[in-house]
Amino acid sequence: MRDPRYDILFEPVQIGPVRTRNRFYQVPHCNGMGHVHPSAMARMRGIKAEGGWGVVCTEECEISPLSEFSPYIEARLWDERDIPALARMCEAVHQHGSLAGVELAFNGYSAPNRYSREIPWAPSDTPVRGYDPVQARAMSRADIQQLRALHRAAALRAREAGFDIIYVYAGHDLGVPFHFLTPRNNRRTDEYGGVLENRVRLLRELIEDTRDAVGDRCAVAVRLAVDEQMAGGLCREGEGAEIFSMLADLPDLWDVNVADWSNDSVTARFATEGYQEAFLSGLKALTRKPVVGVGRFTSPDTMVSLVRRGVLDLIGAARPSIADPFLPKKIEEGRADEIRECIGCNICVSGDHTSTPLRCTQNPTMGEEWRRGWHPESVNCAHRPGRALVVGAGPSGLECARILGARGMEVALVDSQRTLGGRVALESRLPGLASWARVIDYRLDALSRLASVEIYRESPLHAQDVVDFAAEHVFIATGAHWRRDGLGRALRQPLLGLACLPVLTPDDLLAGALPPSPVLLFDDDHYYMGSVLAEHLVAKGLEVIFVTPAADVATWTHNTLEQHRIQRRLLELNVTIIPSHTLVRGTPEGLVAGCVYTERTRFIPAASLLLVTSRAPEQALYEGLNHMPEQLHAAGIRSVALIGDCLAPGTIAAAVYSGHRIAREFDVPAESLLVRREIPYIEV
Amino acid sequence: MRDPRYDILFEPVQIGPVRTRNRFYQVPHCNGMGHVHPSAMARMRGIKAEGGWGVVCTEECEISPLSEFSPYIEARLWDERDIPALARMCEAVHQHGSLAGVELAFNGYSAPNRYSREIPWAPSDTPVRGYDPVQARAMSRADIQQLRALHRAAALRAREAGFDIIYVYAGHDLGVPFHFLTPRNNRRTDEYGGVLENRVRLLRELIEDTRDAVGDRCAVAVRLAVDEQMAGGLCREGEGAEIFSMLADLPDLWDVNVADWSNDSVTARFATEGYQEAFLSGLKALTRKPVVGVGRFTSPDTMVSLVRRGVLDLIGAARPSIADPFLPKKIEEGRADEIRECIGCNICVSGDHTSTPLRCTQNPTMGEEWRRGWHPESVNCAHRPGRALVVGAGPSGLECARILGARGMEVALVDSQRTLGGRVALESRLPGLASWARVIDYRLDALSRLASVEIYRESPLHAQDVVDFAAEHVFIATGAHWRRDGLGRALRQPLLGLACLPVLTPDDLLAGALPPSPVLLFDDDHYYMGSVLAEHLVAKGLEVIFVTPAADVATWTHNTLEQHRIQRRLLELNVTIIPSHTLVRGTPEGLVAGCVYTERTRFIPAASLLLVTSRAPEQALYEGLNHMPEQLHAAGIRSVALIGDCLAPGTIAAAVYSGHRIAREFDVPAESLLVRREIPYIEV
Repeated sequence: MRDPRYDILFEPVQIGPVRTRNRFYQVPHCNGMGHVHPSAMARMRGIKAEGGWGVVCTEECEISPLSEFSPYIEARLWDERDIPALARMCEAVHQHGSLAGVELAFNGYSAPNRYSREIPWAPSDTPVRGYDPVQARAMSRADIQQLRALHRAAALRAREAGFDIIYVYAGHDLGVPFHFLTPRNNRRTDEYGGVLENRVRLLRELIEDTRDAVGDRCAVAVRLAVDEQMAGGLCREGEGAEIFSMLADLPDLWDVNVADWSNDSVTARFATEGYQEAFLSGLKALTRKPVVGVGRFTSPDTMVSLVRRGVLDLIGAARPSIADPFLPKKIEEGRADEIRECIGCNICVSGDHTSTPLRCTQNPTMGEEWRRGWHPESVNCAHRPGRALVVGAGPSGLECARILGARGMEVALVDSQRTLGGRVALESRLPGLASWARVIDYRLDALSRLASVEIYRESPLHAQDVVDFAAEHVFIATGAHWRRDGLGRALRQPLLGLACLPVLTPDDLLAGALPPSPVLLFDDDHYYMGSVLAEHLVAKGLEVIFVTPAADVATWTHNTLEQHRIQRRLLELNVTIIPSHTLVRGTPEGLVAGCVYTERTRFIPAASLLLVTSRAPEQALYEGLNHMPEQLHAAGIRSVALIGDCLAPGTIAAAVYSGHRIAREFDVPAESLLVRREIPYIEV
Repeated sequence: MRDPRYDILFEPVQIGPVRTRNRFYQVPHCNGMGHVHPSAMARMRGIKAEGGWGVVCTEECEISPLSEFSPYIEARLWDERDIPALARMCEAVHQHGSLAGVELAFNGYSAPNRYSREIPWAPSDTPVRGYDPVQARAMSRADIQQLRALHRAAALRAREAGFDIIYVYAGHDLGVPFHFLTPRNNRRTDEYGGVLENRVRLLRELIEDTRDAVGDRCAVAVRLAVDEQMAGGLCREGEGAEIFSMLADLPDLWDVNVADWSNDSVTARFATEGYQEAFLSGLKALTRKPVVGVGRFTSPDTMVSLVRRGVLDLIGAARPSIADPFLPKKIEEGRADEIRECIGCNICVSGDHTSTPLRCTQNPTMGEEWRRGWHPESVNCAHRPGRALVVGAGPSGLECARILGARGMEVALVDSQRTLGGRVALESRLPGLASWARVIDYRLDALSRLASVEIYRESPLHAQDVVDFAAEHVFIATGAHWRRDGLGRALRQPLLGLACLPVLTPDDLLAGALPPSPVLLFDDDHYYMGSVLAEHLVAKGLEVIFVTPAADVATWTHNTLEQHRIQRRLLELNVTIIPSHTLVRGTPEGLVAGCVYTERTRFIPAASLLLVTSRAPEQALYEGLNHMPEQLHAAGIRSVALIGDCLAPGTIAAAVYSGHRIAREFDVPAESLLVRREIPYIEV
């Protein structure tokens, strides 16, 4: 079944005292479930093991309340009380023959200890990361000894929970061991500061301590950032490689990457698959121990190449394993073309940033495995197989049809356009968003394997057409359009003076229109669309003035690790950015803008206005059907439902989820849909 | 004992079917514990009942996953599984003869449902509040019926949990009932939109439903915002009063305030005690039902006046009840001068914003009642009473001495200055911060009642003095000073060119210095200090250029509901604001600043530089003692500890907490200090 080219990916690899069955390695990644939703986290990890990942790791795991990451939800091993939750994850992973890894973390000044109120620790006195009014204090020698003891104790608890691989974490400029490595964080004058040998001392000691404590049964891994991509930061060609060399054979496994997190988990908009190779390449020659690294790998050919060329021993993945927990199994079973490829949007990261379970644009079951009992690769048969009509083949319609088909329904998927994919087909043509077309590609491929699904293109439907079609269940996925009146977060009434100058929306641009220059782009959406269109317009030679009520550009993209890159790019493209302003009215010569803080206004000359504010759902078809209940009944139509953007405009991830959910649940009584959740145990 | 003037405050008040023993009413307030830390929440509320609050309410309480507020931690009554946690709170409140109230909340478009992934509901299609890429959908009639059913079911669960007062929540522009009231949120054309009677319909129905469901045993309260303090918003003199009048006698109790939250909970920097009176006044005449309102009341004379003048029947409090849970009892027992008055800093609010248990500058036991077992009014006797020396009478030293004294230690509190209070004494002279002096006032008053505490002013101590004093336990609270080299969050190396122009720090200004104008104020602190000093300098006639690496001014004060007011004030004072810039180097004519996104620099002319970046702890005395272990031992000095800012500079709240904690714990073995926490129950 399996393509022999890929055999090398299924070779076992010895990692210290343990052995992984193949080269697929889910590196530690946060997930917004952690210690707050431990059963959900365990089930999610277990499914990855089932899907063939030979190693499945936790997220960061706090070892002590002296460095806790609230409100970010990570794993926790403060004391014995935390062992049962993580033991459950280990069981779930072991059940499928995989190894379980845990990333012990003590983040020091990267975490202000909002919950525990302990003073954060750092190599030297420093304010904490972010803006909390908290300063970390320089660790004394006694503190360093205490940290070593805490780490050792946590490693023992991890072993007791059942972990096979135990990490010392020096990645992402987050943990104290990394802070000690870097001169800008470490101004110490004792044996832990100054020359590199001194700055490496703590990391070395923690590796040795961990091996000493648990090395008999567990592998000791080190996650090290070898480059920071910043002036004055750790550099792969300099101390990055030196540190690696100094510790070359000390751990059982090297997990290497680039810091900080935004450089490690770059979105597809800003980097392509394999973008870390330049930093990883050459490290393997410096050690006899296996090396794992990442790069948003979804192509098995790329993976084979990385192993054959001696770049990596193990193919690390966080995001690709989220988008497709069954990626290894699909390669193993000769179904590599069925891989649901990560689109690199980082919606997954936003879960961690908002302290909620992670979600995925491509994999709507992510985070729902335990609470809703969803499996990424299987669905129940429909209770009563019958005919379904899905109107609209955007992300929610495609997904809805896919799941209905998999459940044994006879499905007609009808779209008014020749090109399927709805907004995704259009948006994926915008600068940097090409990989988003994978949302369509995966689903069209899946639909092509479902004999019971028929696709009809270029077929606009009216209400009477739907009645005439007489499917038992109708799912309307007709999408949304961008508002042309300015209504959104800032403006709660239509903008005045819109008749004075050319006004466009993203839909116009996606349809090929170009506004007269200069364009005032008003971004009250705050996600990607405004900035991507600004890039698009600049590429067409237009001048763009970017006005937003927020204090920075695309402010929600802090949650996808993109905000800094986006604002930098717009500035480099000479886009004029006017933050903290809303619009007051249009005039023939431009717009009057108003400061969001004061009553002050300013005039901004512009030849046109591009409104990126909010969207209106396309509910005309639905409303038409709502007005003909008798005909629906006579035609045997038992349900008509809105899904995706035409129910409520949102992200592509939300649209896919909407289509997926209703296709699973439309024939299940609401009261039987148990959503499980974890409740704190009330001590009596 | 009690001053008869205050008798009126201790009259019982009938509220529908229940009766409260006095007029002290803890209105609903968030606390960052809620459903995640229910035992902690229950204990905190119970202590307020013990302290004499006749009514003690929850925070907002979610009634359904269709509107959940994660990651903000509020109460929860989604289904039966949530009853035990809130029953525990009711028991804790009833134990002391008080009534328990619950604020049922369905926030609709104010909450993006990050956890549940349900589509938020609103009167009309609209993006959610904040920046999440989520739009709420207009509620259908069926949705409105479902909301009523959900609210009714939650009211029944609340009654089962033991609550006496059940709220319908239409405050703060947060809940759906309020959204229906306001035309900018409600563009409906059916019987729930248009004329006021229609917009009030949902609120009226919910009140009636609640009375019908639980009115036999529970009072029905309505929390209504009667004014929004914004152009086009609900206005006290217009529809605010009209709505109130239309529903005048429908609920059993009116809890009235001003929207949004930042207008309801204004800090002392921007409003004085009783600032809401203009909005509350006159409402009582429109109803026969009791009225409660707030205004950061801490003066019993003000409270009496409000009742006598017919403004309020019940004295509402959130923040004053946090700062002093025993405020009513102290008035009752003739100890009104012992009230620990709220300083109006809103550190409490930051707990909600950061999803962590609330804390309080004045009351360091807040949020620690259950997990550390701390009571705001009692401490254990010291295990071995003896002599203690506290060096420094800033916030941590004062609090440390207070608790040590209360525990029966013989305490010497020594300060180098004549005026006690350390940084608080100085900072409280800055614009808007006068009430912060209450931190000192309360503690000096408390210390004056402790015979075993002696205070020595104008007594700088050197290490040898400490040895000579020969106390068994030494607590060093020598504070911190602002750095003069620029080191902080943005600059990790000292700023170049500092010798080129006059460079000042906040300490210089607090000591009376004035820099040459124009002043470039570099704020890398991001809390209050930078903006307060800008105000101070403008008041002295200086020109200020405010440069910050953040995207907005005083960005951390989003967490204290102050950011908008602060930036507005600086703009109105004509302070030039240059956000998203750091400093590159000083020159004789000004500063070179660098864009935080690109490599671009710009020159900013200035005659002087004020660095508000980070602070360095004053550890000279501690270090001196550290070098003389034999002398310490010979003198019988058993412990020397750093506390407050000289351990790690932070907020005043953190300094008070530091002094409090060590005074409770210095003689207790670390291993016996159990910090309780709630662990999710692992379903097997």
